[in-house]
Amino acid sequence: MFKSAVFDLKHAEKEQVKEFLNSFDTVLSDCDGVLWIDNNAIPGSADTMNYFRKIGKRVFFVTNNSTKIRSDFALKAQQLGFIADENEILSTSYLVAHYLKSIGFKKKVYLIGSNGIGDELNAVGIKHVGVGPDHVKPDFKSLKPTDLDSEVGAVVVGFDEHVSYPKFMKAASYLASEDCLFVATNTDERFPKSSSIVVPGSGTLVRAVETCSERKALVLGKPHEYIRKYLESCGLNPARTLMIGDRCNTDIEFGVRCGFQTLLVLTGVTSTRDLEKIRKEQIAPLPDVVLPKLGDLLEIVKS
Amino acid sequence: MFKSAVFDLKHAEKEQVKEFLNSFDTVLSDCDGVLWIDNNAIPGSADTMNYFRKIGKRVFFVTNNSTKIRSDFALKAQQLGFIADENEILSTSYLVAHYLKSIGFKKKVYLIGSNGIGDELNAVGIKHVGVGPDHVKPDFKSLKPTDLDSEVGAVVVGFDEHVSYPKFMKAASYLASEDCLFVATNTDERFPKSSSIVVPGSGTLVRAVETCSERKALVLGKPHEYIRKYLESCGLNPARTLMIGDRCNTDIEFGVRCGFQTLLVLTGVTSTRDLEKIRKEQIAPLPDVVLPKLGDLLEIVKS
Repeated sequence: MFKSAVFDLKHAEKEQVKEFLNSFDTVLSDCDGVLWIDNNAIPGSADTMNYFRKIGKRVFFVTNNSTKIRSDFALKAQQLGFIADENEILSTSYLVAHYLKSIGFKKKVYLIGSNGIGDELNAVGIKHVGVGPDHVKPDFKSLKPTDLDSEVGAVVVGFDEHVSYPKFMKAASYLASEDCLFVATNTDERFPKSSSIVVPGSGTLVRAVETCSERKALVLGKPHEYIRKYLESCGLNPARTLMIGDRCNTDIEFGVRCGFQTLLVLTGVTSTRDLEKIRKEQIAPLPDVVLPKLGDLLEIVKS
Repeated sequence: MFKSAVFDLKHAEKEQVKEFLNSFDTVLSDCDGVLWIDNNAIPGSADTMNYFRKIGKRVFFVTNNSTKIRSDFALKAQQLGFIADENEILSTSYLVAHYLKSIGFKKKVYLIGSNGIGDELNAVGIKHVGVGPDHVKPDFKSLKPTDLDSEVGAVVVGFDEHVSYPKFMKAASYLASEDCLFVATNTDERFPKSSSIVVPGSGTLVRAVETCSERKALVLGKPHEYIRKYLESCGLNPARTLMIGDRCNTDIEFGVRCGFQTLLVLTGVTSTRDLEKIRKEQIAPLPDVVLPKLGDLLEIVKS
């Protein structure tokens, strides 16, 4: 029932909604655009997430944001009314640290990113350099081989407002060694547009480093499947997992790739009109189920 | 004879070399790696280029370098022993200015690039902003719509050591308007490697701006075909044109796309070993003719 065309849950019978709720044990939800927008909770989202927990679902908050550590994300969620534990936060900052620790990485990370990743690396005892402005002169002749840190064994690229030409030079120079790992948080091209200013996302920096290093990064965030592997090691059953998101080309793509059920809400990036376009032009996967907002689910249950 | 497999001119009969010399009227040569390396002439290259001119060939110097104006390139060539006029220099800095002038562009350029492009734009009376460090705070919330220049009608991306996050934000924000043109000098991923430091090329910045703007740039440099159109307007006959280069994936690719004859020299990026790999794996087009160095041609003629 939920795996063929897009099912509009808003107009479903109460029994169908119950059947839907019984079809999964684990809920993964994207954050910005589904649960909140910037620092404002989306009405009904917290009650619905808390309801999932009440009826026995495991809940995870999945975000490509790498600028905060897990405890800060959990605190934000709690302040906006969500029951949340930091162990339920799957931010790309945490995933970077978890991944490197899981493979027994012992060297140093060259980080094009923020303190969110840096602090998660600190928490697992992995050394890193690179956060903040780079003080090498922006001149392609100014970087010397002796400026490179011989302990570096991985380049990690996330969101970094201090990105610069010397940072690209360093990243590409480290990556010239085949032994150097190349990890990226996510490939989102840009942030959802809220004004005439376009805010480039981590994907912009990842593509730049991929270009100058002539290598491809291992991407940990949505829509890539690393999170599924992580969760399977925690006992998740993909067939009984629901992914909730507001973007077909990241959240829903991620859910489809992982074999999860998928629920799209229209409070973020993808609009009804976009959904129609996606249906016609097949430019991204369709969700199994759609709802105007996540809170509608609880309203139907309680009606 | 010169259009099937790679012909090693070094071991050709003198008659074959004469036939080769008679098969073209125009010579386009890449500069760095063919004529000189940094500030050192490659022995024999100047004499050979000057010989082409002496036997009546039209000569053009074609470079993806956008950091200088044409007269500076001509001066450098002259100082290294080449007869050269600035009108024979086809640098991407010049091509940007020529292209925008040719389409009657009247607005302002937002330039991620250097003074080379800036000065060529000045020469044709096109206003521009952006060269040098950007003084907007590197914080994605710091750029306001009022910081954008409403006169900007094109974003040009070339080589810029001062590239920064605010520059990516500005470029993507200008490009959000469909009317804004998007022009790039070239897509070279990196400079030829001369030490353990990798020097990212303009292509790294172009890919970044393409990613955050979700648009594709019009690329004027090699291997793209804009130069052919430019030269055809000067009366060039592609079938009787020789392109000389040191890189199969830019120079030779460019020559093949334009329908020119192609000569690869092994004094720059592509080595004999690379050429063998290209032959086997078909990862780039093969040249018609190969020579260890350009000066060998004159040696054979004069032997």
